[in-house]
Amino acid sequence: MTTSTGLHDIICARTNVYRYLKPTPLYHYPTLRQLVGTDTWIKHENHQPVGAFKVRGGLHLAASLTENQKKGGLYTASTGNHGQSIAFAARAFGLAATIAVPEGANRGKIAAMRSLGAEVVTHGADFDTAREWIKEIASQKSGYFVGPTDEPLIQGVGTYGLEIMEDLPETDVIIVPVGAGSGVCGTAIAAKTIKPDITIIGVQSAQAPTQQKCWKKRSMEQGSMATIAEGLATRVAFDNTQQLMRKYLDDFLLVDDRAIEQAVYLLLEHTHNVAEEAGAASLAGALQIKNQLAGKNVVLVLSGGNITAQRLQYILTEYNKC
Amino acid sequence: MTTSTGLHDIICARTNVYRYLKPTPLYHYPTLRQLVGTDTWIKHENHQPVGAFKVRGGLHLAASLTENQKKGGLYTASTGNHGQSIAFAARAFGLAATIAVPEGANRGKIAAMRSLGAEVVTHGADFDTAREWIKEIASQKSGYFVGPTDEPLIQGVGTYGLEIMEDLPETDVIIVPVGAGSGVCGTAIAAKTIKPDITIIGVQSAQAPTQQKCWKKRSMEQGSMATIAEGLATRVAFDNTQQLMRKYLDDFLLVDDRAIEQAVYLLLEHTHNVAEEAGAASLAGALQIKNQLAGKNVVLVLSGGNITAQRLQYILTEYNKC
Repeated sequence: MTTSTGLHDIICARTNVYRYLKPTPLYHYPTLRQLVGTDTWIKHENHQPVGAFKVRGGLHLAASLTENQKKGGLYTASTGNHGQSIAFAARAFGLAATIAVPEGANRGKIAAMRSLGAEVVTHGADFDTAREWIKEIASQKSGYFVGPTDEPLIQGVGTYGLEIMEDLPETDVIIVPVGAGSGVCGTAIAAKTIKPDITIIGVQSAQAPTQQKCWKKRSMEQGSMATIAEGLATRVAFDNTQQLMRKYLDDFLLVDDRAIEQAVYLLLEHTHNVAEEAGAASLAGALQIKNQLAGKNVVLVLSGGNITAQRLQYILTEYNKC
Repeated sequence: MTTSTGLHDIICARTNVYRYLKPTPLYHYPTLRQLVGTDTWIKHENHQPVGAFKVRGGLHLAASLTENQKKGGLYTASTGNHGQSIAFAARAFGLAATIAVPEGANRGKIAAMRSLGAEVVTHGADFDTAREWIKEIASQKSGYFVGPTDEPLIQGVGTYGLEIMEDLPETDVIIVPVGAGSGVCGTAIAAKTIKPDITIIGVQSAQAPTQQKCWKKRSMEQGSMATIAEGLATRVAFDNTQQLMRKYLDDFLLVDDRAIEQAVYLLLEHTHNVAEEAGAASLAGALQIKNQLAGKNVVLVLSGGNITAQRLQYILTEYNKC
């Protein structure tokens, strides 16, 4: 699969996105500045109605389908946020949605998908297994299978990258969590096209490093996946997002799950926002490369906030020691 | 003190508010609908840059001052959110700000005020003691004392009431936490002027019921104050907000602090938003009068999210049993 998504596609996506959503805030937190050692802004995708950036992509994708593509309903796999996005978009467009989730999926995310009217089916040990299975089901039932990195998803989520550049044209660095890569690619396309010398940095969990390894080696391979951050839990790389990341990404960090948990705690303490593990990976990445960021205007994408109460309780108990 | 604030004043305040802030979202949560038993929206004032609705008022107040009033700097007392609002506005307008906080004030809020450049001084056992003390200091130093219910504050915060009515003209009921009363009064003026048959309900903690008692008896008196919700921790009623509440409020509930804590947990579970105790009082109120709300479009004002990590940890441990 080759990719041709550019800034113009992202600008076109805005109409479909803003019919249902408003731009999210980009806030400067003085106490985070002390922590990171430089001026730091948070892009609050956790303020979306389903608590994560993905909903922008789902809406644009659903709006882009033909009547024929829509009539059998939407089928996709998700660890939760992409599924909520497709469920939200399906409801907005009056379509059926069937979402496959892996065993042990975040129950808050499952409840949210169901409350939006989607059918949720549990299948397989991880996201990629669920994805291959539901793709087959969609084919059997003449439904429309939505892949995790379909181009309209990248175009839709790229609208938050555009918002960052409009709200803070002086941005020097944007750090973005990477799952399948739609978020970082959309952001990078928007930001680099507008300001070519901006630095775009992806972050993955060291416990699910497939995308990062493929990006580094410029090859496609599968890897291990054992992260607690379900939003980063991919073990398969995708052609189009790998191509885009090779073109646009300046660096790609791996952060340990423990550093991610600590970042969830720090975001709560300093911004009073709940980040899910994946959403906090950008702060964990910034803290890891603090020395390289001095004097720069840094934007951290808080990509989602859908952590379970159980996980948050665990993190507060572990990290709130002082 | 008499009050003359009307819808026109709130509309005028918008210019000053939107120079610095964007409208906050009003989201419908399907899983909250199951909980409350009717369609329920959250007005997300916790999404403000200082995590609470107050910042709207501070900005409008600072913009309304004469050069002469501004030159000695701003002085006020706060349990935290009003202080952050004044600190934020002072920074925006290049003014000095001195904030008196009571002993034991929320340390996250104190850190946030300081990080915005305000001088924070601890004085007295509660908000009202700190307020009387700093008013005297302001007078000695020829500074401008900002009272908790100054009319420009009501006008500024009323802009979120206007946003509710514009985003959801079909709103039947708005439930608002009450501290000194600026939020509920601004909301009520905007909403009732636009839609006279709308129901506006205030909520206070049963452990700090002064405003509610004065409203019920139509008299001014002091009461007890022992709530854990610092945003509701007033023991003195104020002339102008009492007048406005008598004119506009349909009901005024008292909810137990335990019910407020549970509502903090439920908001986290169902919306993945952190509410501080005061901010969750609206949900606690809705659950208390669930039977009266059936079939209505209910808006709950989540007025602020600045809970400490310690308190959130306690609440998760206590209420997250299943």
